[in-house]
Amino acid sequence: MSRLLNGTSYVSSDAREAIEKAIAKVGYVQNTAARNLVTRRSRAVGFVVHEPHELFLDDPNIGAILLGANEVVSEADFQLVVLVLDSERDSQRVADYLQGGFVDGAVLVSARQHDTIAGAVERLGLPAVFIGHPPGHPTIPYVGIDNRSAARSVTEELLRTGRRRVAMVASALDRDSGSDRLAGFRDALGDRFDPRLVVDHPLYSYASGLDGARELLRRDPAIDGIFAASDAVAAGVLEALRQAGRSVPGDVGVVGFDDSAWAVRCVPALSTVRQPARLMGRRAAEIVLGQIQGAEVEPGGALLDTEVVWRASA
Amino acid sequence: MSRLLNGTSYVSSDAREAIEKAIAKVGYVQNTAARNLVTRRSRAVGFVVHEPHELFLDDPNIGAILLGANEVVSEADFQLVVLVLDSERDSQRVADYLQGGFVDGAVLVSARQHDTIAGAVERLGLPAVFIGHPPGHPTIPYVGIDNRSAARSVTEELLRTGRRRVAMVASALDRDSGSDRLAGFRDALGDRFDPRLVVDHPLYSYASGLDGARELLRRDPAIDGIFAASDAVAAGVLEALRQAGRSVPGDVGVVGFDDSAWAVRCVPALSTVRQPARLMGRRAAEIVLGQIQGAEVEPGGALLDTEVVWRASA
Repeated sequence: MSRLLNGTSYVSSDAREAIEKAIAKVGYVQNTAARNLVTRRSRAVGFVVHEPHELFLDDPNIGAILLGANEVVSEADFQLVVLVLDSERDSQRVADYLQGGFVDGAVLVSARQHDTIAGAVERLGLPAVFIGHPPGHPTIPYVGIDNRSAARSVTEELLRTGRRRVAMVASALDRDSGSDRLAGFRDALGDRFDPRLVVDHPLYSYASGLDGARELLRRDPAIDGIFAASDAVAAGVLEALRQAGRSVPGDVGVVGFDDSAWAVRCVPALSTVRQPARLMGRRAAEIVLGQIQGAEVEPGGALLDTEVVWRASA
Repeated sequence: MSRLLNGTSYVSSDAREAIEKAIAKVGYVQNTAARNLVTRRSRAVGFVVHEPHELFLDDPNIGAILLGANEVVSEADFQLVVLVLDSERDSQRVADYLQGGFVDGAVLVSARQHDTIAGAVERLGLPAVFIGHPPGHPTIPYVGIDNRSAARSVTEELLRTGRRRVAMVASALDRDSGSDRLAGFRDALGDRFDPRLVVDHPLYSYASGLDGARELLRRDPAIDGIFAASDAVAAGVLEALRQAGRSVPGDVGVVGFDDSAWAVRCVPALSTVRQPARLMGRRAAEIVLGQIQGAEVEPGGALLDTEVVWRASA
């Protein structure tokens, strides 16, 4: 249970009584924010997106997670308020906002280690849940997928098509999702793992795929398979291969990760890992609403199932 | 000036005094929502997105507008809170939220005629601005582009490549952007306009383009040019043509609208209209912040410049 709900925070009961009395004396008050002072409820849930600009535009998963969360929060007659962080300045202000009584809980997307927001949420005891699993915040539950085993599965499928020089464009190694996908790739290759065939870029973006595949082709023109850390990265990889005159899947097999809207629009359509983004958003919202309504926080994570989806790119 | 800022709304001055006194008596109150009751300022600006699910995921413009608005609101040390509407139930709750003192103003994206939110904002006198220009709300200023003349320009470019049977996949005719783009297409064709060569779908989506182009090819297999009402629609048109064995731009020239992230990733890259989405978001935020800080509302619209960008698809 959060301190918020136990009433040990924010407003002393003396203050609350005095304010209730004042409000009662003067009659009707239309301002909901004022009423919240009494009920200590905003009936709002924050949805905090910590993404650099480019990725926010490139990554359709965030939209799907958001819409899933919005559905559940709306069904409970709460308001989802989305807060986008794009700078350190944003971080401090969003932390203040979360602490200011404007929301009863928060879904945190794409948090990083030593995240200002996650730290603030933890200190405050605000009901919260992560999408994904940043290290260092054991009291906050999370919803995610097993990135490592999913990455291993899709790489094994790629190897099963007979590829012999399989490379990876890794991304976001500062996050659990990025580092776990690389670990799964390595698991699948075992003794055949060659660190020279891995390039990494900070963002899950089209540009990362474009640059990454060019660099890989320079390092080893005989590459015949590429695992891209996301579908957006894979779209960039496909373009780099097209520009280099390599056919897909003839010369090079390509697999992605996400099964986002991008996957079916790539030419050829991507073989990839289906990530249940909308369901992750729904589940995360359910967990936060449960906490707000007084459920015990169950530490640890809920890992949702993924599935390898085989299409035309490998 | 809004009634909000003039203090004629929300809380009577008796109530305000009584509450201020109560708060003063008990000392420090940490809750910002409580402080707002006194200052009647939340230092937050709403960003209301009224889109059906599919479109929210398909349309990178919304993300770019949001990020532009977020930059400006953040620079002013206000918090942007994004509210997504996906049902009538959402509409009523978001309207309540906007009326509840949680935000000092709002940017309204994709409002339609007889929009619940726009109506509520107008009744409340909340500082607000539209992205786009829904009819029926003359007191709310807007930021937009001249869709009609931009659509005319890009269609004229397409005609200049020698196309003789030019069709359109129109979308969202219930909005100014959709109906104006169709009007511009018609302007460009003049006497050659053939209503049988226009199909329309409710959403600016990939699926609209896919279905729309298939229908057009059934109606007239000799079509040699298609204007798609957005880049997402154009991406679907390209796929339908590919499936039908038509080469682009050899057999059919295709142009889109938006110059979104999609445009350069289409194969072939799209000729399209560049819409300054991020700048629209910035300008809209500036207008709302101006109103919040007491500027007079200048009725009418700010139309930003567009540009035809010619690439490989026509």
